[in-house]
Amino acid sequence: MPLNEGFRKRALDELIEWLRITSVSSLPEHKSDVERAAEFVRQALTKAGMTRTELIRRGEGHPMVYGEWLGAPGKPTVLFYGHYDVQPPDPLDEWKSPPFEPDIRGNDIFGRGTSDDKGQTWIQVKAVEWLMERDGRLPVNVKFILEGEEEAGGEAITAYVGEKPPQLAADVVVICDTEMFAPEMPTICTGLRGIVYGEIHVEGPKQDLHSGVYGGAAPNPLMAVAEILTALKDKDGHIQIPGFYDRVVKPTDAEYAAWKTLPFNEAEYLEKEVGSAALTGEPGFSVFERTWARPTFEVHGIKGGFTGEGAKTVIPAKAVAKVSLRLVADQDPDEVVKQVAAAVEAACPKGVRARFVLLHGAGPSLVNTSNRFVQASAQAMEEVFGATTVYMRSGGSIPIVGTFAEHMGIPSVLMGFGLPDDNLHSPNEKFHLPNFYRGIESVALYLKRLG
Amino acid sequence: MPLNEGFRKRALDELIEWLRITSVSSLPEHKSDVERAAEFVRQALTKAGMTRTELIRRGEGHPMVYGEWLGAPGKPTVLFYGHYDVQPPDPLDEWKSPPFEPDIRGNDIFGRGTSDDKGQTWIQVKAVEWLMERDGRLPVNVKFILEGEEEAGGEAITAYVGEKPPQLAADVVVICDTEMFAPEMPTICTGLRGIVYGEIHVEGPKQDLHSGVYGGAAPNPLMAVAEILTALKDKDGHIQIPGFYDRVVKPTDAEYAAWKTLPFNEAEYLEKEVGSAALTGEPGFSVFERTWARPTFEVHGIKGGFTGEGAKTVIPAKAVAKVSLRLVADQDPDEVVKQVAAAVEAACPKGVRARFVLLHGAGPSLVNTSNRFVQASAQAMEEVFGATTVYMRSGGSIPIVGTFAEHMGIPSVLMGFGLPDDNLHSPNEKFHLPNFYRGIESVALYLKRLG
Repeated sequence: MPLNEGFRKRALDELIEWLRITSVSSLPEHKSDVERAAEFVRQALTKAGMTRTELIRRGEGHPMVYGEWLGAPGKPTVLFYGHYDVQPPDPLDEWKSPPFEPDIRGNDIFGRGTSDDKGQTWIQVKAVEWLMERDGRLPVNVKFILEGEEEAGGEAITAYVGEKPPQLAADVVVICDTEMFAPEMPTICTGLRGIVYGEIHVEGPKQDLHSGVYGGAAPNPLMAVAEILTALKDKDGHIQIPGFYDRVVKPTDAEYAAWKTLPFNEAEYLEKEVGSAALTGEPGFSVFERTWARPTFEVHGIKGGFTGEGAKTVIPAKAVAKVSLRLVADQDPDEVVKQVAAAVEAACPKGVRARFVLLHGAGPSLVNTSNRFVQASAQAMEEVFGATTVYMRSGGSIPIVGTFAEHMGIPSVLMGFGLPDDNLHSPNEKFHLPNFYRGIESVALYLKRLG
Repeated sequence: MPLNEGFRKRALDELIEWLRITSVSSLPEHKSDVERAAEFVRQALTKAGMTRTELIRRGEGHPMVYGEWLGAPGKPTVLFYGHYDVQPPDPLDEWKSPPFEPDIRGNDIFGRGTSDDKGQTWIQVKAVEWLMERDGRLPVNVKFILEGEEEAGGEAITAYVGEKPPQLAADVVVICDTEMFAPEMPTICTGLRGIVYGEIHVEGPKQDLHSGVYGGAAPNPLMAVAEILTALKDKDGHIQIPGFYDRVVKPTDAEYAAWKTLPFNEAEYLEKEVGSAALTGEPGFSVFERTWARPTFEVHGIKGGFTGEGAKTVIPAKAVAKVSLRLVADQDPDEVVKQVAAAVEAACPKGVRARFVLLHGAGPSLVNTSNRFVQASAQAMEEVFGATTVYMRSGGSIPIVGTFAEHMGIPSVLMGFGLPDDNLHSPNEKFHLPNFYRGIESVALYLKRLG
């Protein structure tokens, strides 16, 4: 059921209009723009045939946009999740066209939010509108919950879903916010890593000391940070936190077999994507396993002392390391926080005090591919793309998936239409337009199959 | 030969006038102030009886001030070294009185440069002036070389002394820029540690990577820095750089005996000076040995990734650690640079490139206390203070001492009149006025004894 030209043009024109709104959720000066982007999509949901729409607020942040059409009693209810806020556009001078003036070059549309996630959210809205236009009704019940804080912590939606609102009751969550493994290869993401993000705080001398006068007798918190980090992870990338791997589930044979079908060239990945002298990580595990199915411990920054130009000989009073652990099923973030805190204390060197301070955590998620909602999605995409749907995982974290699972008890289907080179969060973000149209067709066909 | 009241008052009034000039050498906006401070002391040298004075320039920086009186043929020549530039005063709001409006409270004068080093340089100038006023001549030949870049790298004087200028020829350098071990305890500093200051540069991925997508396969330069640091120094503070300790000279029995006479309470030192949970450093060595007679390796700052508020999950492309090694006799900075560079490369983990980049180096120095210039200094201070002169070392570095030794082949006598709580480089820098006057008397008596 291919889209007609008129619908295609209108869908793209409206998307461009939406992309022009600078809905940067993390920058206070864009608060009213974020609000405008919310109202824009609320009206689009009404136009698409939703019988009830509203803006939902929790806290001081940006609103969520809700919409529903419940005219198919006895049929499943699909909850669409997406987000209408975007990342800041800096560095501006690296954009070839202005980030908020969408520019079509070849088969791609360039601009902030084109693929993350306005373009993919628009797929959901337009799929519903198209069915409604053709049939005057939908094959299943449909709800939308679109967030405006995904790029800024997502506090409102976490609070809201935590209330288990009956309004959100559904059989499945459909999320279009991931990517295809490769062009022309429809993809379902079946697993996401969870995360524990925090800081290791080390306190040593009561004030900054001169390293000439005190070096040799006073403890150095920066050195203590280095000692703690190397105690927590060995040179092979194996994490030395007691109990940390206990709950890690090995991928199934079916999953290993699915990954074997994915086109992947490790030498090319090293050269074009990573660009370091060599890859690293736990020996005996493939790149897919290391990035999708094994947990990690990474340090993101170390604060303390002097990092300016020139030479300052300071032993700092304090140092802080920002670290994160990516978790895989069935690791539990709360349990990991306790394990890390204990390991930091155990590794604390003489003369200093060290503790782990949690910033946020989210559980991993793993989708059962034999689930009928996943199967229907795979078949719909297969039909539209004319190619076999593949299953991959992602090493990243989409905390809302775990939130829906935990509080609403419903699975998520991650059918994403981005591509690996879409420059998410970077200059020259783009979206491949053929995938935009095939995405609308795939979601529409998916709803028909569920109905 | 105590100073009379009139001389005391005039010496202090003039010092206050000099202290009001904001000669902060590292801040370009104070360039003309530094110049004014140089001219101020040049005129003071003329007034003190120097028969020739001049400003000497090397490079773009601040001038050196030279003065000489050579009217004692056959007698030794004493070269006084001091510096008229000062550290920046920040943080300003922690000063109880403005840094450049000297304030006398009790027996102390507060202000930037009071003890480091305008106050102590003024001791040298006024000692000469006083003798000249009393006797119409000096007992020895005297030269002054006063630097304006000591707090900003000291490039001009290093270049100048490297030329071995005949004008600087002397039998001994006298430096008043150190401190007494305790109040009422005249002190000669007999050893200084050298320094090698540099950066460990680590390069990993070609650009910053997302730790969700690449964590587990991509090398992390910050973690590599931690691994290199812990490879170069073990948990006991023992440095693991091959050959590093080979040239380290053990203090003599006489020196150990001298240190035993110094009043020192380790528990008090821990609580009042360091303020950490415990002291650290190589087992089997005392605090004096660890801070004066043993070399160190310290990290001062680690740059790379994200250290702002909140959570950013970046694997940085690069990381830099600022590090220094303090050296003791007979370690050689050039040799140590090679040893460190080799050790950094040897410790470089898989997947990244690491190298050591030198910022600057200076050799250690050790004074033979049986030297007659040292003996005369000890006796002069003993007479003025009415207490036995003690010998200590300093863990810090005064690179000019090594420069004079290397290029001019002359020893330095470090007779300092500061106190351990003078707040050098910090807010509320002070100088103990009784030490200012006794300093003038000690230096004058010292010249008489040499004559």
